[in-house]
Amino acid sequence: MKALLSRDAETMRPSPIRDLAKLAADPDIISLAGSQPSEEAFPLEEIREVLAGLVAKLPARALQYGLTKGDDELRDVALKMMARRGIEASREEVILTNGSQRALDLIGRVLIDPGDAVITEMPTYTGAIACFRNLRARLLGVPQDEDGMRIDKLERVIAKARVEGLDLKLLYLIPTFQNPSGATLSPERRKELIEIAERENLLILEDDPYSELFFDEQPPASPVASLSSDRVLYLSSFSKILAPGLRTAFLRGPQELIKIIEQAAQASDLSAGTLDQRLILELCHSGVMRRSIDNARVFYRKQRDVQLAGLEEFMPAGITWNVPRGGFFTWVKLPEAINSEALLQGAIKQGVLFVPGPHFFVDGSGSDTLRLCFSEQPAKKLRQGVASLATAVRFYDLPSTIPWALGECC
Amino acid sequence: MKALLSRDAETMRPSPIRDLAKLAADPDIISLAGSQPSEEAFPLEEIREVLAGLVAKLPARALQYGLTKGDDELRDVALKMMARRGIEASREEVILTNGSQRALDLIGRVLIDPGDAVITEMPTYTGAIACFRNLRARLLGVPQDEDGMRIDKLERVIAKARVEGLDLKLLYLIPTFQNPSGATLSPERRKELIEIAERENLLILEDDPYSELFFDEQPPASPVASLSSDRVLYLSSFSKILAPGLRTAFLRGPQELIKIIEQAAQASDLSAGTLDQRLILELCHSGVMRRSIDNARVFYRKQRDVQLAGLEEFMPAGITWNVPRGGFFTWVKLPEAINSEALLQGAIKQGVLFVPGPHFFVDGSGSDTLRLCFSEQPAKKLRQGVASLATAVRFYDLPSTIPWALGECC
Repeated sequence: MKALLSRDAETMRPSPIRDLAKLAADPDIISLAGSQPSEEAFPLEEIREVLAGLVAKLPARALQYGLTKGDDELRDVALKMMARRGIEASREEVILTNGSQRALDLIGRVLIDPGDAVITEMPTYTGAIACFRNLRARLLGVPQDEDGMRIDKLERVIAKARVEGLDLKLLYLIPTFQNPSGATLSPERRKELIEIAERENLLILEDDPYSELFFDEQPPASPVASLSSDRVLYLSSFSKILAPGLRTAFLRGPQELIKIIEQAAQASDLSAGTLDQRLILELCHSGVMRRSIDNARVFYRKQRDVQLAGLEEFMPAGITWNVPRGGFFTWVKLPEAINSEALLQGAIKQGVLFVPGPHFFVDGSGSDTLRLCFSEQPAKKLRQGVASLATAVRFYDLPSTIPWALGECC
Repeated sequence: MKALLSRDAETMRPSPIRDLAKLAADPDIISLAGSQPSEEAFPLEEIREVLAGLVAKLPARALQYGLTKGDDELRDVALKMMARRGIEASREEVILTNGSQRALDLIGRVLIDPGDAVITEMPTYTGAIACFRNLRARLLGVPQDEDGMRIDKLERVIAKARVEGLDLKLLYLIPTFQNPSGATLSPERRKELIEIAERENLLILEDDPYSELFFDEQPPASPVASLSSDRVLYLSSFSKILAPGLRTAFLRGPQELIKIIEQAAQASDLSAGTLDQRLILELCHSGVMRRSIDNARVFYRKQRDVQLAGLEEFMPAGITWNVPRGGFFTWVKLPEAINSEALLQGAIKQGVLFVPGPHFFVDGSGSDTLRLCFSEQPAKKLRQGVASLATAVRFYDLPSTIPWALGECC
């Protein structure tokens, strides 16, 4: 069998987070390792209502093969959503995919040859790391501070890559409410990014699943894609603002590139689900999505507050964390004496799971960090989980004070 | 932009059939070029009923992220369906994908490196050609006769590939009611295939979308996968027997390989649609699928009969065709004087579309063949389409008799 595998397959590894998911199935374990939206935040009753209305008039073509690019009307909805976020685009610049992960792979397929370099934030989304790694890309990480990816470090990474003769293709980032750091890229840096992309002939892939899920105020900057139509691929999805089981994301990019991505999709999945697209369309037209987003903001803010209150209450000195302004995650910094992979073993004994930092770092660093999800668990368990984690932390001898700021670590 | 594309992307081409689909949107054109199931064959009323029942009790988790492998219960249904077809398997050997096309790509990704050889029937499914070609596989075609892939020719293709030092990985075929030839591989040849796969350390990918859609009698042989559990990947789907918009296929293979395919899927789409899977499960449990298959057999047999009657009535001597025993297509052989690509231009003027043979031949041959779809059009248009095609054919000077049998051509 082994002789039959491709070189891509030889590099493939199971998702560490999906592996933790197996442990999370134990009812005695509280998982803060996940990344799913809360089912409590789904507008379930309203989805039922809209679905019931759809059933009565369900056209046969909602069950037929659909366009590879996606339903025309739903692409128009995506255009309107993007316009509200500051991005002008035309239908020909948009394709719908079976979720954002599918789009990452399609983009990777049409841009990346083995050995090509992809720049990512460090830390970044594990699913993007896995996707680009499966394509045998060379991943180059750029540290962040509280204003997102550090441009000075980016320049250094690019310069080094040029010296090494690497083929730089893509800069992947989640500029708003980043997963896992929670950081948001400042408006100035967004502009600088575009300049660098122009200068270096790079494409930027802006992954934006969370920007609608702000807690306190709107994100301080429009999407990077609002600054350039030919340098930025903009990816967003209905998964976090409606329901992920409907597996529909939208991707906007230069028309020429979208056309090639469409060709890649034709031969690798044909299209996103037709009924799913129709249902999402109805949920948008009927206003359910808009209300769902409003509710989700309130819901996840409360969740965040419970988690932060728990951290304040239970964590010993020396452990620090950010205050996420949106999204699903709190990013925690440990004193150097604590290795987050080792801590996870202790935490499991206390009945709590999290994702150790190194999974988010393309260079395997970040062992003094970890990610806590606040989207999934009910409030009581959120609090209990943090308390159990604090118990696990207390097994370590901690120095009394640790000077630390986000700017220095991630 | 061009400098940024991957080598895979440089080889990508738009689907010729999807391009014809644009012409097919003209209401004055009758398309016999498609490959979609008829919306008339969808059990629309019953789907509405089941969906309505599902709505009332819709659990939130039907909208949540699902397992990459697919819903456990639906995998069990797939196991039962396979068992009825003669294939024994366990849950760990099955994964659900966003349709069969997604499975083709996943299989290709984990098996094929650029330059590796994939053997296909000649002619074969255009979507498989596009998928493997996008992975830069070397495609080797093996002619068929009325009993399917010719084993003597296969042996010759393999011997030649070995001499050339090609890395042979996969043998892709549609052994039952083949697309486009309609041929069904004989039981003897199925056994011989397994022996060859063992001897040559090849994997067989058996694509089986149509075997339930037989018109006259059950397929004369069990799936190739019923003969070997470790040499055959078996792919089937709900698209042709229920509704393709639900985008769900099932793939059975050696557990070790399914595990790697699952890893590839984790990083390239996360999972098939959760609501779609739930709906299909209900349609199976409620008996709708079983009745849908029974109805589809009757429906498509009538469609075939209309097309064949039209061919008998209108086609001049010298044009021959097979009698499909299942599936969606009639395969037509032209006299050598007629090139099917040129004929298509004439046919368009007469208001009818078909797919010229060369699109199905990995070596670009087959210019004296074409495929007619009988699944899509209503009876009146099926007949009219064939009449218009015959008019286009009559522009050519035809010899009075052409000796021909399927065995000699495809």
